[in-house]
Amino acid sequence: MGERIGFIGLGIMGRPMAGHVLDAGFTVTVWNRTRSKTTPLVERGAAAAASPREVAAASDITITMVADTPDVLDVILGPQGVAHGVRPGSVVVDMSTISPAATREVARRLAERGAEMLDAPVSGGEKGAIDGTLSIMVGGKPEVFERVLPVFQKMGRQIVHLGESGAGQVTKACNQLVLSLTLLGVAEALTLARKAGVDPAKVRAALLGGFAQSRVLELHGQRMLDRNFAPGFRTRLYHKDMGIVTETGRSVGMPLLGGSLAAQLYQVAMNQGLGEMDYSVLARVVAGLGGTES
Amino acid sequence: MGERIGFIGLGIMGRPMAGHVLDAGFTVTVWNRTRSKTTPLVERGAAAAASPREVAAASDITITMVADTPDVLDVILGPQGVAHGVRPGSVVVDMSTISPAATREVARRLAERGAEMLDAPVSGGEKGAIDGTLSIMVGGKPEVFERVLPVFQKMGRQIVHLGESGAGQVTKACNQLVLSLTLLGVAEALTLARKAGVDPAKVRAALLGGFAQSRVLELHGQRMLDRNFAPGFRTRLYHKDMGIVTETGRSVGMPLLGGSLAAQLYQVAMNQGLGEMDYSVLARVVAGLGGTES
Repeated sequence: MGERIGFIGLGIMGRPMAGHVLDAGFTVTVWNRTRSKTTPLVERGAAAAASPREVAAASDITITMVADTPDVLDVILGPQGVAHGVRPGSVVVDMSTISPAATREVARRLAERGAEMLDAPVSGGEKGAIDGTLSIMVGGKPEVFERVLPVFQKMGRQIVHLGESGAGQVTKACNQLVLSLTLLGVAEALTLARKAGVDPAKVRAALLGGFAQSRVLELHGQRMLDRNFAPGFRTRLYHKDMGIVTETGRSVGMPLLGGSLAAQLYQVAMNQGLGEMDYSVLARVVAGLGGTES
Repeated sequence: MGERIGFIGLGIMGRPMAGHVLDAGFTVTVWNRTRSKTTPLVERGAAAAASPREVAAASDITITMVADTPDVLDVILGPQGVAHGVRPGSVVVDMSTISPAATREVARRLAERGAEMLDAPVSGGEKGAIDGTLSIMVGGKPEVFERVLPVFQKMGRQIVHLGESGAGQVTKACNQLVLSLTLLGVAEALTLARKAGVDPAKVRAALLGGFAQSRVLELHGQRMLDRNFAPGFRTRLYHKDMGIVTETGRSVGMPLLGGSLAAQLYQVAMNQGLGEMDYSVLARVVAGLGGTES
């Protein structure tokens, strides 16, 4: 295939995502901070580069999938970053979840080098990454979106272009905001049922048939009943995302009474040492407030 | 059919529900505070009684479907109430949404008369009542549930027995709690998107494909986009229900940080004169906090 793909960040999400692109027959160059994580992909035919700069120099489309805003700034704008290797006419696609404001700044800096940028955060977790069924929320120019679409289609199932630069990150923030409050509602309801002497499993089943239905009630509700908080998506990262949500609200003057309550409860979860557990462990925090087990 | 059915409360919900029971061939006796509302059912073959007491005297199973706890106390325990006409071995089924504590008290008083009681609040709104597709959440003795089940099946599709007396009302409170926080999340997210310059319709569509999916995002999210707050289910009644939610939490020592925030915002909606609009009008309250239109 024509486009050469670079992939930076081979963690829980990035590794299977890069694997799908490689399996589709693209030429792939990879880089990861911990170099040993490149080995499985190199054994399957990827090239390993010594820096993000070198990845960009060898690629038409460079994808970044790292943990947080500072990581994106480092791998793109840092001394060995993508911006120093990127060629005019190439595209940088950041699939990490970071702040819309930082995204727009990175896009501006890349434009100075003649490179395009898309923000394309994902939803669907490790399972979605492995199955190639992620939801991908994209911001940037429509023609750049069309150009990268064949690559997105190897990693995701629902791929939506939402608007100009930053629109993907705004949408991801909205996603986490909706999720957090749905989760809080389910956690409070199942704990309330338990404390009121009603079987929370029966309550969950009854609610699934009505207007209270949600994927959260279905999937995370079951996790809460099973007390299965193995990740999944880690509380530490969700806490980071809720910081982006509240920062985004603040940056546009939108008070988020519900969102900031949820963000505070994730801070409580962090303070209780639950950072490495699945983000549905919010139920344990809520149950703790009631002096009971989740 | 053998069981004679009484129906007390022929409002937006009660009238179509009683109609379905009548259409199924049951002998039905009705009563409503505003007598004229009984006429359409009488024309279709129902008998009209002069008081709830008379309804109970003429029925094996007496159903109440009224607005609030005081109304239930009045039609069941008041001077002309069901309790004064009910015969031993008959059943009273309260399908209103009231507090679990009041429910248990009414059940205790009816038991003194030798009558059984089920609490059987519903979800699904006016449309569910008209279509006969309500979700019915039932508390009470299993054998009484089995006896009334054929009647429930005329009014609802998902009919679940959740436990002893009060369990239906606890489940309904859990339903409203989950709904209110899901709705708050959707309202905040769509307003955040709009303020951040991203099309909220696109955000809704993107989120429907992932973990943030819910019937609220689907149905009420669309209402918010259309600014269509015609009821549906009135804010005034939802505000009443949120009072039951917070009271139920308090009665079992369960702090509901999210639920009480939602309850407070429904108080704001009431104070803004939105009581007769659909409860998804919460989006207008949230948008107002952002100094923008919903």
